[in-house]
Amino acid sequence: MQIVTDPAAMQQLAFTWRDQGGRIVLVPTMGYFHEGHLSLMAYGRGQGDHLVVSIFVNPTQFGPQEDLDRYPRDLERDCDLAAKQGVDVIFAPNAEQMYPPGYQTFVEVTEVTRGLCGASRPIHFRGVATVVLKLFNLVQPHVAVFGEKDYQQLIAMQRMVADLNVPVTVIGRPLVREADGLALSSRNVYLNPEERRTALKLSQALFLARDMAAQGERSRERLFAAITPLLDAEPLLRLDYLSLVDNHTLAELPTIQHTARLAIAAYVGQIRLIDNILLEVP
Amino acid sequence: MQIVTDPAAMQQLAFTWRDQGGRIVLVPTMGYFHEGHLSLMAYGRGQGDHLVVSIFVNPTQFGPQEDLDRYPRDLERDCDLAAKQGVDVIFAPNAEQMYPPGYQTFVEVTEVTRGLCGASRPIHFRGVATVVLKLFNLVQPHVAVFGEKDYQQLIAMQRMVADLNVPVTVIGRPLVREADGLALSSRNVYLNPEERRTALKLSQALFLARDMAAQGERSRERLFAAITPLLDAEPLLRLDYLSLVDNHTLAELPTIQHTARLAIAAYVGQIRLIDNILLEVP
Repeated sequence: MQIVTDPAAMQQLAFTWRDQGGRIVLVPTMGYFHEGHLSLMAYGRGQGDHLVVSIFVNPTQFGPQEDLDRYPRDLERDCDLAAKQGVDVIFAPNAEQMYPPGYQTFVEVTEVTRGLCGASRPIHFRGVATVVLKLFNLVQPHVAVFGEKDYQQLIAMQRMVADLNVPVTVIGRPLVREADGLALSSRNVYLNPEERRTALKLSQALFLARDMAAQGERSRERLFAAITPLLDAEPLLRLDYLSLVDNHTLAELPTIQHTARLAIAAYVGQIRLIDNILLEVP
Repeated sequence: MQIVTDPAAMQQLAFTWRDQGGRIVLVPTMGYFHEGHLSLMAYGRGQGDHLVVSIFVNPTQFGPQEDLDRYPRDLERDCDLAAKQGVDVIFAPNAEQMYPPGYQTFVEVTEVTRGLCGASRPIHFRGVATVVLKLFNLVQPHVAVFGEKDYQQLIAMQRMVADLNVPVTVIGRPLVREADGLALSSRNVYLNPEERRTALKLSQALFLARDMAAQGERSRERLFAAITPLLDAEPLLRLDYLSLVDNHTLAELPTIQHTARLAIAAYVGQIRLIDNILLEVP
């Protein structure tokens, strides 16, 4: 496995592969891998000839009060894990190479980024769209694989490539959970035992709603009435949002026609966690 | 010469050329060709194997009070002129294909677009950057050729490709003038004889400044004091801006070190005209 840090070298390598007719797959990440990341790599390995995993903690998607400096990093361990997944190249540029002096260009997906995490993280998706487009230009992938854990991000990236005619297929893959239901996140490492117990309430709330929908419940009002008490009972948990949205437009839904996405974000202590689930009414 | 209107067909053709090792050149235009456009095509013809000229009057770069509906169009004549320049493909999509329902992604170059035309046309360069990035993704050019007539646009596009790591070389080519100095513009067709005489003052003002700089004048204040009376004397002319700026950052300059760009925009009657010139102090 090769480690590339220079953006120009990455782009040159990508065009060499393209000239040879190779099919390129990109899994963009911020590193500190867990089973969720590894499942994206395993899937990506089967999608092309050259599998690139980018590791870049992107400063433009963090707000001034957010955890950019505290975001966990362990490049050596990440490289070991990626090598075991058959990754060909780890692309790990630094911030100065990605945003040199005078940098001033940004990409905005305006509608699907408005609600959910976009409401409480106003510049977040501008940073995500910008860096992902840069990574696409540098790695020249045919396919890019994202996790459904960041569901709004996945939808925004699918919208971006469609709108800007970027010749990349953006594929979303299911999020991975611990045995007890907690959605895997690099930020889970910061939860103390009590916070970790509290964090379980997020997935428990989603599972309850999923089960109610599976039994025919379509009403947002009744779903929320059932699950918010679970969350309100937790003194360490501060809800950011609980939203029932259309799977594609992310517009808020008063009732479920056939399917919907239920998304949640909450602070557990100082740590902001997100989770989401597909609701299907039979 | 082939005329392609479907964006997906254009992109497929571009990848076919790329797979065969072909080098692609794009000249993006809004059509209604004059000698300025033809000079870009002639230059572009020598830069690669496949020369594409796009013709698209892009709605997202026109403000609500601007001349989108009145912008001159003549596709048949344009195709005749392009064929004579050895153009391989005219890519002429329609607005519904480029901006289908639900479209919501935009690209912004934030600094170099602030002054000059950006000050009086607030959404203009967002529209330009967005459509040019879309055209780059659809045509997959190695080289794109722009005219220096739209100098701020050229600088913004060079900034965009550098910032977003777009693998396209953006080349600027000199603007073309009538024998009497008037910068060629598709909008000149709307000038009546009196307005056309008035419009000449723009280039005359720039030429005077160029000559003063060539004789050693570095001061913005003295240059402007010499040329503004020429413009103020014209009752049909309403100045939008007169700016002395750095060639690359477009920052306003109080004095010329070695070179600078002098740019002007003015309404002549109802028609907004722009022009610019390189100033060089020996």
